[in-house]
Amino acid sequence: MTDFTTWALDIQQRTEHALEQLLPKANIAPQRLHDAMRYALLGGGKRVRALLAHAAGSLCDANANKVDIAASAVEMIHAYSLVHDDMPCMDDDDLRRGKPSCHKQYDDATALLVGDALQTLAFQTLATTEQNLDFTPEQQLKMLSTLTIASGSRGMAGGQAIDLASVGKELTQLELEYMHIHKTGALIRAAALLGAYCANQEDKAKIAAIQQYAEAIGLAFQVVDDILDTEADTATLGKTAGKDADSNKPTYVTILGITRAKALANELYENALAALKPFGEEALRLRQLAQFIMQRSF
Amino acid sequence: MTDFTTWALDIQQRTEHALEQLLPKANIAPQRLHDAMRYALLGGGKRVRALLAHAAGSLCDANANKVDIAASAVEMIHAYSLVHDDMPCMDDDDLRRGKPSCHKQYDDATALLVGDALQTLAFQTLATTEQNLDFTPEQQLKMLSTLTIASGSRGMAGGQAIDLASVGKELTQLELEYMHIHKTGALIRAAALLGAYCANQEDKAKIAAIQQYAEAIGLAFQVVDDILDTEADTATLGKTAGKDADSNKPTYVTILGITRAKALANELYENALAALKPFGEEALRLRQLAQFIMQRSF
Repeated sequence: MTDFTTWALDIQQRTEHALEQLLPKANIAPQRLHDAMRYALLGGGKRVRALLAHAAGSLCDANANKVDIAASAVEMIHAYSLVHDDMPCMDDDDLRRGKPSCHKQYDDATALLVGDALQTLAFQTLATTEQNLDFTPEQQLKMLSTLTIASGSRGMAGGQAIDLASVGKELTQLELEYMHIHKTGALIRAAALLGAYCANQEDKAKIAAIQQYAEAIGLAFQVVDDILDTEADTATLGKTAGKDADSNKPTYVTILGITRAKALANELYENALAALKPFGEEALRLRQLAQFIMQRSF
Repeated sequence: MTDFTTWALDIQQRTEHALEQLLPKANIAPQRLHDAMRYALLGGGKRVRALLAHAAGSLCDANANKVDIAASAVEMIHAYSLVHDDMPCMDDDDLRRGKPSCHKQYDDATALLVGDALQTLAFQTLATTEQNLDFTPEQQLKMLSTLTIASGSRGMAGGQAIDLASVGKELTQLELEYMHIHKTGALIRAAALLGAYCANQEDKAKIAAIQQYAEAIGLAFQVVDDILDTEADTATLGKTAGKDADSNKPTYVTILGITRAKALANELYENALAALKPFGEEALRLRQLAQFIMQRSF
């Protein structure tokens, strides 16, 4: 069994390769749009959602080539949300993964279309899988319904709307949690579930555990993000540090203070591990991934 | 057999009802987003794409309750594209269907999310159809793959990108046609095909005819639109008249002149009818709809 770093690097590379193949080439018309889609989706990020899909897939003994499809679709949704989120009418952020954000590198109209088209490509990817991958139509529909629900107005896009409405307001911890469960949690949960749905046999106990794990680690991920936003500098982060506090957005750190925020992250981490308890070595990758998510900060 | 006007009114009403049911209620959180989604999608337009889906469904003897699902998904994609297209970074249009466009009525960030979430809802609608409608998973996937391909970077969103790139340029008639085949043609073609795919049995000859019909009438629709944009006033149009010419966008009228543009529209109309020739009375609704599309203008 390879160590986690080697495993994660392999997943990141195969995800990059899968995305590269699924994206239209930059020399296909309309070139500028395709070039910008590739700019926004390729070569960046830790691919946490792809790692989650593969770690959940590994617990369920899913074929990794099938999980690549699920992981790619989730990464496309994530990338689309970042492109739109960075736009001037939203967070107005000039930096993403250490590079100019999409609307800075191209222009606002192109960024709008890039986000739109990446969203479409995510669902196209799930709807048009290659025959040799042996997805059943039922599997594809399950992935499609899970990912659409997680992305829409009652999932990720809804979370963005709640986030917008919360700027300059005092939120309670519960309200902040409600926002994050939608804004980032829904897609993280979907990433893990889609990985599990790639298995030929559905194991209800494993799916339930993955769901519990993903909900805990999804929230932990956000708490860690808020801590990082306070403690790290822009160079390390690859996006503008201190941005949330500056823009008067409530964060776990502003609500709880740094010490209690760290304690909450640890508690959520323990909850995530508890969900995996029945599965021993089979859940190794999910367990390591939880640790990896925590270690981003402290 | 009811006359066309009665039939069309019935389709428009049942489409409105289906969309109303498929949209989250405005009192479900996040309320502002759901309210704005309803504003953008309900109560407007001629529902040409829904009419097309039902007319094609009628040729193929599809269950109208199933076609409602297909038609709703296509109308959601259309509405999302209008919301984003009206935004300041795109066409910057204040009026849509005689009302303030979504970003004027709400704000830019909300309009961005409304478009995003309406796109997601379109695919969610096709992926999560109710059991009593008896869609096969294969039918759902066929509709999903057709609609995603028609909407994405090589379909509608790509057409918007080509449109953006063409502002201020001299286009040939062929280049203009290429743009419209993507920007509006792809979705119109998808609307007709999705209606046909709702039939229990797939009739290849009918599908081929519908495709040929939809390609001709889709382009005719655009030529008529350009003529309307020149000849009608803002009140009749429900959107800002003369907008395209003012913003230095090439149109069929600027390239061909009004007389040749009208002749082209008629030629395309004849092509659409020719495709239906083998089917006699079965194709009545498609034939009437072609006439209706032409009569919008002259």
